[in-house]
Amino acid sequence: MNIDDIDTPAILIDLDVMEANLARAQNYADKNGFALRPHIKTHRLPAFAKKQEALGAKGINCQKLGEAEVMADAGLTDILVTYNIIGAAKLDRLAALHDRVRMAVVADNAPVIEGYIAQFTDPAHPLDVMVECETGAERNGVQSPEQALELARMIDAAPGLRFRGILTYPPAKPKETGEILMRIKQVIEAAGIKVPVVSSGGSPAFYSAHETEGINEYRAGTYIYSDRMQAAFGMGTLDDCALTVLMTVASRPTDTRAVLDGGSKALAADLCPKPGHGHIVQYPDAVIAKLSEEHAVVDLSACTDKPKVGDRVQVIPNHVCVVVNLFEKVHLMRGNKVEQVVEVAARGKSN
Amino acid sequence: MNIDDIDTPAILIDLDVMEANLARAQNYADKNGFALRPHIKTHRLPAFAKKQEALGAKGINCQKLGEAEVMADAGLTDILVTYNIIGAAKLDRLAALHDRVRMAVVADNAPVIEGYIAQFTDPAHPLDVMVECETGAERNGVQSPEQALELARMIDAAPGLRFRGILTYPPAKPKETGEILMRIKQVIEAAGIKVPVVSSGGSPAFYSAHETEGINEYRAGTYIYSDRMQAAFGMGTLDDCALTVLMTVASRPTDTRAVLDGGSKALAADLCPKPGHGHIVQYPDAVIAKLSEEHAVVDLSACTDKPKVGDRVQVIPNHVCVVVNLFEKVHLMRGNKVEQVVEVAARGKSN
Repeated sequence: MNIDDIDTPAILIDLDVMEANLARAQNYADKNGFALRPHIKTHRLPAFAKKQEALGAKGINCQKLGEAEVMADAGLTDILVTYNIIGAAKLDRLAALHDRVRMAVVADNAPVIEGYIAQFTDPAHPLDVMVECETGAERNGVQSPEQALELARMIDAAPGLRFRGILTYPPAKPKETGEILMRIKQVIEAAGIKVPVVSSGGSPAFYSAHETEGINEYRAGTYIYSDRMQAAFGMGTLDDCALTVLMTVASRPTDTRAVLDGGSKALAADLCPKPGHGHIVQYPDAVIAKLSEEHAVVDLSACTDKPKVGDRVQVIPNHVCVVVNLFEKVHLMRGNKVEQVVEVAARGKSN
Repeated sequence: MNIDDIDTPAILIDLDVMEANLARAQNYADKNGFALRPHIKTHRLPAFAKKQEALGAKGINCQKLGEAEVMADAGLTDILVTYNIIGAAKLDRLAALHDRVRMAVVADNAPVIEGYIAQFTDPAHPLDVMVECETGAERNGVQSPEQALELARMIDAAPGLRFRGILTYPPAKPKETGEILMRIKQVIEAAGIKVPVVSSGGSPAFYSAHETEGINEYRAGTYIYSDRMQAAFGMGTLDDCALTVLMTVASRPTDTRAVLDGGSKALAADLCPKPGHGHIVQYPDAVIAKLSEEHAVVDLSACTDKPKVGDRVQVIPNHVCVVVNLFEKVHLMRGNKVEQVVEVAARGKSN
C-alpha cells in the first residue's frame, strides 16, 4: 500500500521524522540527567508509548483515566495521571488501575486529597500522589509554598497515600519555574517531608529544561510529532513535523481559491501565532484562510503554481494533539510506503 | 439512572427542548411550503434522523460518505451528500450506496462530474446530481449562472446521471440568496433543462427562509440542538439549547478562578461572537476564559455565588456540531432522568 491508495482526509505519520524526534529528546534528557516521562495525549497509541519507553523514557503521563486504562490494557505499567481525580466513579476506576499497574496522580486542593484518603487505605500498597503547583501560567495548581506544604502534609500523613513530589504545568519561563519549584521544595523539606520528584513539562520549552533548576522529571507530549504551533514557538522547524493530514482539493471556485476536503473536523480550530489553519507542504505560500466543519478554504493569492481539483496535499496542522483525537486511525509511513495502519486506541478517552 | 450517576465530561440532550426545536422547525417548513432536509452532521444519530423524518422531513443531508454509510446501514433511504465526491475509492463507495438507497450528490466543477459520468452509466438507475452555486459566502460553488448552466448541461447529457437542481451553502442574506438562485434557475431553464429542486441551507437564517424566493428545499442541522453561536446569531435563545456538556469543577486555585474537567477535547476551540468558550448554565456570569486540551479555565470575577471543587455544571458549547463529534456517546435526558445512553454512530466519519 502506497500514499496514493489512502483515501482522504487521513493522518500520515512520517516514521523517520518521528524516530528522529524521539531520539533527540531522549538524548537531551539523558545528557541533562532528568527522566523523560512522555505524555501520550498526543499520539494516543500504546505502541508508540512502548517505543518511547524502549528508548529510555521512565513511565508515561496520561491526562485522563480513560487514556490510562487503554495504556494499562496494552501493557504499560508506570502511569502518572496529571489530573485531580474526583467522584466515586473515577476513584473506583483509579483503584482498579492501581491494583494492576504502578499509578500516580496529582492534587492541588484538599477535597481531592480527601477523596484519595477515603478510597486508598492500604499502607502496604499506597497510591503515589504529587502536588500540582502553579508557576505562573494560571491554570491549576497551589498558589504558594505554604499551600503546597499543607497538601504534602495531608498526603504524607495518610497511610494509604505516598507523597511523590511536586509538579507544574504549564510552566512559566524555564528559569523562573525552577526558582518557584525550588522554594516550594525547600519549604516542604524544611517540614521534614522528602520531595523525591520535581517535575516540569511542556514541549515548547523542552530543550530549555536544563535551565530549570532542580527538576528530575520532564513530561512532554507534542515533541513526538511536533506541529505548526511548536515550530512557531521555536521547537524545531516545519521539517521536524512528523504528522500531516493528507487532503484532496475538492473545489477550485476561483483563480485564487481552493477548497480542501477537511475542515475543523479534520484540522481542529486551534489557532497558532502564525495566520492560517495549517501549513500546506506542497504549497507553502498558500494560506488556509477559513475552516468550516468539512471544508478548508485556501487563499492561493501568493502562489505561482496552483493545485487543480483532485490534487492531493499534505497539511501540517496547527495543533497536532487535538487532530489525532479526531481520527479513527493513522497511517505509519516510510517514505511514500504505508508500513502499517493503526487504530487510535485512546481516541476520545477524555473521561 | 439519574444525572448524578453520569461521569464527567459527558453530553446531555434535553429531549423536551430538542423535540420542541424539531417540531417548531418542521411546522415552519410546512407552513412555508418547502421541504426540510435535516443535516445529520450535528447529531450523527440514526434514531434522531428517523425522528426528523417521522415529523415530516423529506430525506436527510450528509456531508461525507462515511456519514451516509452509517445512516443507510441504519435504514435511512433518501440521502443527499452535499460534497464533491472525488477519486476511485469514494466513487466506488458512492456506487454501493446508490445501489441500496436513494442517493444524490453535488458538483461545482467539471472534473467532479466527469468522475460521476465514468462511474454511473445506467440510464435505468441514474444518480441524482445537483449543482452547487456560490451565493456570496466564498466557499464552494460555481461563480456565475453560465458556469451553472455548463455543469447542468454535462449532467443532463450523461445517461447515467440526472440533474436534480441547484443548491447553495453557506447562503448570503436570505433575499439576496433567492435573487442569485432565481437568476441561475432562469438561465438553466431557458436552455431547456428543468430545475426540479432549489435548495438553500443553514440554521442561523432558517426562520428567514420564507424571504428566499423560489426555494423548495432547506437543509439545516444545528437547529436540532442549537448552541451558543446560534443564540448569538438570533436563532432562538440559550433556553432553546438542548445539548449541554456536564462537567465537574476540578480545581479552585484562586478566589476568582475555577477549572472544569474538560477543555478543547470536550468543548472544541470554535469561537463565538460572544467572548468565552461556552455558557455555564448554573453560573451565567462566569466566563470560560481559556481552554487547554482537558481544562477549561473559568473567570468567576463577575459571580457572586461561586462553585466549589466537586460541583457539577452544565456548559452550552459555542458550536455543538464539533462537540458531538468528540464524544463516544450522548445521554438522552427527560428532566434529570437518563432515558437512554446512545452511541454517536457517525462520530469521526469525515471521510
